[in-house]
Amino acid sequence: MAQNIYDNLGFYEKYSQLDRQVRGHAGAPEWSSVSALLPDLKDKRIIDLGCGFGWFCRYAMEQRAKSVTGIDISKNMISKAKSFPKNSTITYKIADLDEIILPKGSFDFAYSSLTFHYIKDFSRLMKTIYDSLTSKSHFVFTIEHPIYTAPQNQKLVEDSDGNQTWLLDSYQIEGERTSNWLVKGVIKYHRTMTTIIDSLIKIGFTLKYIEEWKPSEKQLKDHPTWKEEITRPCFLIISVYKD
Amino acid sequence: MAQNIYDNLGFYEKYSQLDRQVRGHAGAPEWSSVSALLPDLKDKRIIDLGCGFGWFCRYAMEQRAKSVTGIDISKNMISKAKSFPKNSTITYKIADLDEIILPKGSFDFAYSSLTFHYIKDFSRLMKTIYDSLTSKSHFVFTIEHPIYTAPQNQKLVEDSDGNQTWLLDSYQIEGERTSNWLVKGVIKYHRTMTTIIDSLIKIGFTLKYIEEWKPSEKQLKDHPTWKEEITRPCFLIISVYKD
Repeated sequence: MAQNIYDNLGFYEKYSQLDRQVRGHAGAPEWSSVSALLPDLKDKRIIDLGCGFGWFCRYAMEQRAKSVTGIDISKNMISKAKSFPKNSTITYKIADLDEIILPKGSFDFAYSSLTFHYIKDFSRLMKTIYDSLTSKSHFVFTIEHPIYTAPQNQKLVEDSDGNQTWLLDSYQIEGERTSNWLVKGVIKYHRTMTTIIDSLIKIGFTLKYIEEWKPSEKQLKDHPTWKEEITRPCFLIISVYKD
Repeated sequence: MAQNIYDNLGFYEKYSQLDRQVRGHAGAPEWSSVSALLPDLKDKRIIDLGCGFGWFCRYAMEQRAKSVTGIDISKNMISKAKSFPKNSTITYKIADLDEIILPKGSFDFAYSSLTFHYIKDFSRLMKTIYDSLTSKSHFVFTIEHPIYTAPQNQKLVEDSDGNQTWLLDSYQIEGERTSNWLVKGVIKYHRTMTTIIDSLIKIGFTLKYIEEWKPSEKQLKDHPTWKEEITRPCFLIISVYKD
């Protein structure tokens, strides 16, 4: 079972103040890259795995999706998601993605944003998603980059000249990492690029595109601290296809 | 034009003493992973890009390839390759892979070992290789891993407890890196995983498999210093397919 850190009140309160929660996609720096990979969502039956506040579910609704199913482990998240205006297109469900069972061949597009690094059994979930999709379906997701998840203690150091170094270790040692992000003791799972990509291919997906997100020059100018993303990638964006 | 460091006498002398040059594939730790990806080479027309001493060319000859073309920029390499026993299956040519032109649809399998990080224009070369292959052809290659090529000054540090850290920087800044490997001033090119994989997909290849090589438990026991490869990957192995 995945840790349900989002129902930790201290975490949730801090998380709710993140720019990407307050402003939705407008506050998510990688959104322009992600949205460029989306197929036409009109009339699609969509599943959003780890929907959080439901920003993508509402986006899909606006794009005239036929149906959107938003799944999240956190009651707080789903409760907040339900508080936004929506119509009958969207259904929210509370479920643990490490144990979820999905109806086969029921969706035409799958989506997930920054959720899968909380999942213990990546391969099982990818197979579950694959089986839940009809043929000719896209699946776009973001996940924390292996370079970012690898270290036992994540640390970026900067010298007096502003040169940054990311202290990388344990890359080939997959498994649980405890990080102090917003609160202490957030459990995530490190997986190598090998595992992420080969799991998808082995299951039957065709890899269409990967992107190790980095800020544009304008984003860097507006947010100088994002220089860290030049030193080492934090977000991995992946687009695959079920033939 | 690629730097021809292999015709630098100091470099060449040291390089010739590497275990993988003296013993061939038996001295290449990643060979068991690479060889597992090879299709049946019998009757194939094969191109080996950056053939060095010709270890793979002779291996393909032993597997009863129809023909093997070994390409290398270095006269030293090709001269040494020609000094080994061979038959008319193998043809060696001196050429710069940054400028090479290959006959279209002339090969059934392409191979390259630890060469492409010397190449300035990766995308051009991948397109050249794609066009030189017939349909239903595999292409297997190894390249230095982006985590390994990224830093401006490659450095792995170890504390008194034996904990290692790889000092990663500049990951998103692609281009030339000067390293001191065997001799000073060896020029390599850093490319992100994004660039490597998406270049291949964009050109038309289907990604079949990637592997960030790591030593087996037995290899680690026999070669304790290879622990570095657990801390951060050095070799990236890729298998793609032209439909």
